[in-house]
Amino acid sequence: MVSAGVVVEGLSNGTDHSHVVSISVYVAVLCLCIVVGQLLGQNQWVNESITAIIIGCITGIILLFMSRGTNSHILRFDENLFFIYLLPPIIFNAGFQVKKKQFFRNFGTIMLFGVFGVFISSAIISAGSWWLFPKVGFVGLDAWDYLAIGTIFSSTDTVCTLQVLHQDWIPLLYSLVFGEGVVNDATSVVLFNAIQKLDVFKLNGWAAAHVVGDFLYLFSTSTALGIAAGLLTAYALKALYFGRHSTDREIALMSLMAYLSYLLAELLHLSGILTVFFCGIVMSHYAWHNVSENSKITSRQVETIHLHIFATMSFISETFIFLYVGMDALDAEKWKMSKSSLQSVVGIYFIIIFLILLGRAAFVFPLSALSNYLHKSSERVPITFKHQVVIWWAGIMRGAVSVALAFNQFTYSGVTWNPVHATMIATTMVVVLSSTLIFGLLTTPLISILLPRNVLGPSTGFNSPREDLTLPLLSMDESTTTNILRAKDSLSMLMERPVYTIHSYWRKFDDAYMRPVFGGACRDL
Amino acid sequence: MVSAGVVVEGLSNGTDHSHVVSISVYVAVLCLCIVVGQLLGQNQWVNESITAIIIGCITGIILLFMSRGTNSHILRFDENLFFIYLLPPIIFNAGFQVKKKQFFRNFGTIMLFGVFGVFISSAIISAGSWWLFPKVGFVGLDAWDYLAIGTIFSSTDTVCTLQVLHQDWIPLLYSLVFGEGVVNDATSVVLFNAIQKLDVFKLNGWAAAHVVGDFLYLFSTSTALGIAAGLLTAYALKALYFGRHSTDREIALMSLMAYLSYLLAELLHLSGILTVFFCGIVMSHYAWHNVSENSKITSRQVETIHLHIFATMSFISETFIFLYVGMDALDAEKWKMSKSSLQSVVGIYFIIIFLILLGRAAFVFPLSALSNYLHKSSERVPITFKHQVVIWWAGIMRGAVSVALAFNQFTYSGVTWNPVHATMIATTMVVVLSSTLIFGLLTTPLISILLPRNVLGPSTGFNSPREDLTLPLLSMDESTTTNILRAKDSLSMLMERPVYTIHSYWRKFDDAYMRPVFGGACRDL
Repeated sequence: MVSAGVVVEGLSNGTDHSHVVSISVYVAVLCLCIVVGQLLGQNQWVNESITAIIIGCITGIILLFMSRGTNSHILRFDENLFFIYLLPPIIFNAGFQVKKKQFFRNFGTIMLFGVFGVFISSAIISAGSWWLFPKVGFVGLDAWDYLAIGTIFSSTDTVCTLQVLHQDWIPLLYSLVFGEGVVNDATSVVLFNAIQKLDVFKLNGWAAAHVVGDFLYLFSTSTALGIAAGLLTAYALKALYFGRHSTDREIALMSLMAYLSYLLAELLHLSGILTVFFCGIVMSHYAWHNVSENSKITSRQVETIHLHIFATMSFISETFIFLYVGMDALDAEKWKMSKSSLQSVVGIYFIIIFLILLGRAAFVFPLSALSNYLHKSSERVPITFKHQVVIWWAGIMRGAVSVALAFNQFTYSGVTWNPVHATMIATTMVVVLSSTLIFGLLTTPLISILLPRNVLGPSTGFNSPREDLTLPLLSMDESTTTNILRAKDSLSMLMERPVYTIHSYWRKFDDAYMRPVFGGACRDL
Repeated sequence: MVSAGVVVEGLSNGTDHSHVVSISVYVAVLCLCIVVGQLLGQNQWVNESITAIIIGCITGIILLFMSRGTNSHILRFDENLFFIYLLPPIIFNAGFQVKKKQFFRNFGTIMLFGVFGVFISSAIISAGSWWLFPKVGFVGLDAWDYLAIGTIFSSTDTVCTLQVLHQDWIPLLYSLVFGEGVVNDATSVVLFNAIQKLDVFKLNGWAAAHVVGDFLYLFSTSTALGIAAGLLTAYALKALYFGRHSTDREIALMSLMAYLSYLLAELLHLSGILTVFFCGIVMSHYAWHNVSENSKITSRQVETIHLHIFATMSFISETFIFLYVGMDALDAEKWKMSKSSLQSVVGIYFIIIFLILLGRAAFVFPLSALSNYLHKSSERVPITFKHQVVIWWAGIMRGAVSVALAFNQFTYSGVTWNPVHATMIATTMVVVLSSTLIFGLLTTPLISILLPRNVLGPSTGFNSPREDLTLPLLSMDESTTTNILRAKDSLSMLMERPVYTIHSYWRKFDDAYMRPVFGGACRDL
């Protein structure tokens, strides 16, 4: 009731009261999303993103009628809200939940898709839109806009596919789809910013090299910052030894440190997404296991349960974003602002969808072939054509990062008065909406046709490489002859299976030097 | 790095960049608080509130030097931030963690202290300041201000004492101190608002009755709203039966529903504090146990661990508030604004401290005597004089609610140009600061003198009433004679021990009608 006082006072100001009303509406609609999502949960075709978008649309329609066609959304889309508050928990949770073993084993392939793939896809979408947009009578964008469109539509949202694929079912495929999803968000964002700084009037080889150099610098420094923040937290948790009953403080410290690393990266003009992703990975590797354990529960159980804290934050943020996209798609002002004819809007829409499909096909199939060729001698089974189709499909859906980048490029603080820009914003919304709805709904039937589960069974399809790979180079309790023989073995192994060998050396190093300092789970092998 | 883009763009706007910087500084200082708090954790004298206030002061001094004496705080105190975002998790967590059995057993005494106590204390502080302030040369406040001062300094912060008292040690004392702390926050806030609406020029018996009527209306409707929201959530969780692996959705739904009840109460001009407190109680009683259990872990363990989600949110909010108080106490502008002489400021300060001590003594001792008299015939041991002193002491510390109310009364959106009001804000800050620091630091020695633990032992001092109190009025499987005899027994029991008897009937009702609908833990008796 004091707050009622505050609110009443706010009423006279006008802004605060409507602020509380819009928060209330959002919270109520979020609750509705969870309940409806749960009711539809038995239906494998519909997932939370789709539910949120549909409910967002319905809410938008209701608000449109209530406000008599003037305003369908309650809160204006605010990039700052998105980038400062909503994105960090989603990415941190992704890093925290990633299966590190699989992720690092397939690191090379993931980077191939996530980094080079985005470069290829952006180039195709940029060039294609530059060539095709004027043909449907849509002109008025400059060179930066076309380059930005390339990156805007190159960031994917793989949530729909990940909800259908199961982690234990085809580990390689899951790991590739998941890993690419995170890496390509970060790549798109970094590339988007590199392009903003580009002088398009001096486009030549040197400028392209500059973009690549910028990209590599941002990628490495951001990763290093994230790892440093994670290690610092792990060390603090281990050194301080928080007693029992203070798990809340430890979780608070972890969340705050991760968030701080994100903010610092932003302030230093690095990529916060990459930083907080690697911070999440390092924290789940070291810091997590330093969190003091309730004496009655095993470490594994604590881990399983506590993940919910981060998963809950991530879940709320994600639902909120899709809800917003659903509401905003009905924003009447935006559609009125856009002066383009219906014909050209439909044209732009189909061009973009076509370019997305093409841009993705242009890298998934060649790069899969390349990856298969590089892993020819290793024990990893190749990526079959059916799996390539699934990877290609998984990346067709466009999500929140596309929306945020489009707002960044085409609006000023969420508002635009330029009709061409308004058309682009509206088109982006429709692309995100329709790709999530149409392609998202088709994901389950597609995957069940491509990968019939009864044929594959729960754990066949891909043979996991020998887990008990012994790496004797560092073992000292053997005779010299044996050691030399083994050294030869492991050297030839390094030639044959570089990824696994490096992985094994990393584990030796981790056990010998890192874990004693930063803590971590007991090896389960 | 997109966000870097946003930030860079923000830089040109000017506000967004400084916004990110201040969030970063706050997050960094929060991390520091947790680490330092942990390092000092072995020291029983210092607790988190004290650590946060001291670190806040130090940060304030550093910022004061960096900005060359112009500005010691980064974010201006924003009541909306406090009432919309920080307070709800703290109160919800308090409701969620409360030991319901103890709380409801001592409900009468808690209400006596929390409601009547605040009325008595407010009256004494208002009258005392109205009489004494002009004597130290401080004039310029109107009648509303004096009445507001009464309620501002009647809301207590019992965190310091609760950290020293242990729940299992002296359950009655803990429960009284904890319960009074929550109820008196709500009472102060409700009373504060009732006074705002009061026409002071027509002060008579009718006006007083009107305040009491308002108070009762707000109290009952707010409580009803909270209970309704809690039951609705419990029912939804039970009806939907979320499967395994979706605990994050259930926790999200609980948090969002609790938050929604708070916002709704505010929009309906009720007391959000009371609503969310009772919502927390109902949720922990029913909804919590409907949260689908991980098959490997017992309900009790899930509960223990999951509490950390709400406890973490609450902990961060609390630390943030104390940090702010520490920083704000050094706000140079506020001190310059206040044109009162040092002598009169010191005078006001000591008057307020004296009135707080007096106002509290004026109700703790008489009301304890009253409570002991009312419970004379029951099995509850009386509140001894030593315990009365502890209860009196526990409520001397002033906290965040006092600060927020003072800002509400004496500033407009956190800023004031009136020197008299600036003096009151500065004095409130110093009272909160010094009472938390000085009285907080003395709490441990005082309690160890009053209640030497080796004498009391871990579970003596208060004999808990018979837990196996059988209430046979509702049992049907006995002969009529026995039933009549037992009915006589339980009627006389109702006369003798009304509280326990009502409690037992409630449990019968709960088991028979409520739990089948809303779910809940299995009775552990």
